[in-house]
Amino acid sequence: MDFKKVVVAGSGVLGSQIALQTAFKGFDVTIWLRSEGSIDRAKPKLERFKNIYLQTLEAMKTNPQAYCRGLSDKKDLTDDKIDELKDNLIKGYDNLTLTTSYEEAAKDADLVIEAIAEDPKQKIAFYTELAKYLPEKTVIVTNSSTLLPSTFADYTGRPEKYLALHFANDIYRNNTAEIMGHANTSSEYYNQVVEFAQAIGMVPLKLKKEQPAYILNSLLVPFLSAAQGLWADDVADVETIDLTWRLATGAPLGPFQILDIVGLTTAYNIGLMDPRSSDINTIQGKVSAALKKKIDAGELGVNAGKGFYDYTDE
Amino acid sequence: MDFKKVVVAGSGVLGSQIALQTAFKGFDVTIWLRSEGSIDRAKPKLERFKNIYLQTLEAMKTNPQAYCRGLSDKKDLTDDKIDELKDNLIKGYDNLTLTTSYEEAAKDADLVIEAIAEDPKQKIAFYTELAKYLPEKTVIVTNSSTLLPSTFADYTGRPEKYLALHFANDIYRNNTAEIMGHANTSSEYYNQVVEFAQAIGMVPLKLKKEQPAYILNSLLVPFLSAAQGLWADDVADVETIDLTWRLATGAPLGPFQILDIVGLTTAYNIGLMDPRSSDINTIQGKVSAALKKKIDAGELGVNAGKGFYDYTDE
Repeated sequence: MDFKKVVVAGSGVLGSQIALQTAFKGFDVTIWLRSEGSIDRAKPKLERFKNIYLQTLEAMKTNPQAYCRGLSDKKDLTDDKIDELKDNLIKGYDNLTLTTSYEEAAKDADLVIEAIAEDPKQKIAFYTELAKYLPEKTVIVTNSSTLLPSTFADYTGRPEKYLALHFANDIYRNNTAEIMGHANTSSEYYNQVVEFAQAIGMVPLKLKKEQPAYILNSLLVPFLSAAQGLWADDVADVETIDLTWRLATGAPLGPFQILDIVGLTTAYNIGLMDPRSSDINTIQGKVSAALKKKIDAGELGVNAGKGFYDYTDE
Repeated sequence: MDFKKVVVAGSGVLGSQIALQTAFKGFDVTIWLRSEGSIDRAKPKLERFKNIYLQTLEAMKTNPQAYCRGLSDKKDLTDDKIDELKDNLIKGYDNLTLTTSYEEAAKDADLVIEAIAEDPKQKIAFYTELAKYLPEKTVIVTNSSTLLPSTFADYTGRPEKYLALHFANDIYRNNTAEIMGHANTSSEYYNQVVEFAQAIGMVPLKLKKEQPAYILNSLLVPFLSAAQGLWADDVADVETIDLTWRLATGAPLGPFQILDIVGLTTAYNIGLMDPRSSDINTIQGKVSAALKKKIDAGELGVNAGKGFYDYTDE
């Protein structure tokens, strides 16, 4: 892997973090955006994450709890070493290029990380237009959470160099990257993306084939659904269910503590994909109705201050 | 709750632990067994657990890792206090009464904990015969993992005083007790059983109604099934799946580490309950076939020295 220029397309919450993290680790980063308006909206987001990175690094000097795996693979850093990381971050941030030009973004690009909206039409339009300008060498990855790379491979003009690189939110802390090809991804480029993920401080989690929901959500969704079923069917209290899981497995968080982090709206939307959710006589229907009631009351999870638990005192 | 005499019926791995734990906490314990042969088989099991308790308590004097929640609710015990607990254990062990007589067991019993085989016929025969001798006051609980109390309530002659009290293996360490009534269990006796669970060092986990698989297995089964599906469908390696779960949730163990503790035979048998497991073209069929191959190779889990992981060096 000798990637130098990395293009991040899109600057939502995750796009901004990916761009900053990649620049922090020494790559030459260009952010491609659809419009001047998008550029105006991206700038404060990037600045916000720059400050989070700098504050976290500073906190790591005195507070071991502040340590984030994506910022350094070592826990015990000298103050000098942390100042060096802060310099890297500022340098990376200052060197970010923002553009709306496909041509400028594509020029000599080694890797494009697509992190635009989860809308197949927009993704197809992006890949099709970009393909006109990209050099042959460029590898493309998608950060899509819900769409499969096989859906878009042909539009990239380089299916063998196209795969998924899926980040978690707060990538400086939650530094996992699920890596998933489609049937025609070449192992050569798959391996380059694995190396790149490591180079930007991520732990690569390798999937051997396409799997909707990748690994993590393939485990989380049925687990969280089962917990929601016990709650909506009034088998046990939220606190009891969480306590059972923590005591029996040693996990730090029970399913409802995880749901409060994921957000109840996301859980509700996932539940709606099951056709049984429209029938109140099924467990899935009871879950949907019970979640809807909490969502309508504004109890959306940790970010709202209240979800299954109350966070207003924190 | 003013239980004094507690009868434990059955002396399998769990029955032995329940009897010893209850005696350790100061109750007058009688173990009822079907035959003199059962008594001969029970004695070495009880002695083995007595030694495990004593060794664990002794280890707690010097090694904080040895601490077991079921032995004491406090972590920092003086050596004198630990010696006192060892005395309690020896006293409890010496006072155990083993009998094959329903009449002797039933006499003045406050609580019967049924922990005999998971065979409805045997349970019905036991409850029916016991009911002839039991005083009116006696509360009965079943430790059944897979059968519902409503199935047996009428045979006990006291449905309102009958419910489930479900222990985990190694109860001195894994001190959870799921407590579950059927529709006609009286809240008065339900609450007495909650108090009793606390009195023998368990954390009571209260279910508000009957639920097959209780809380823990209602969560574990779909979670572990999803993980097995990813593995049997060759989406990712066992190590990668476990790493994903640990990194994303902070849990100490991934699903395959848990499966190695549960045992692959148990996972296989649970899988067989799904009719799709007989069709190799389904994920459930692939899971069954892949588990069968490992079981045939003797890779049964931690206790066998090998399962999904190798434990022979430990």
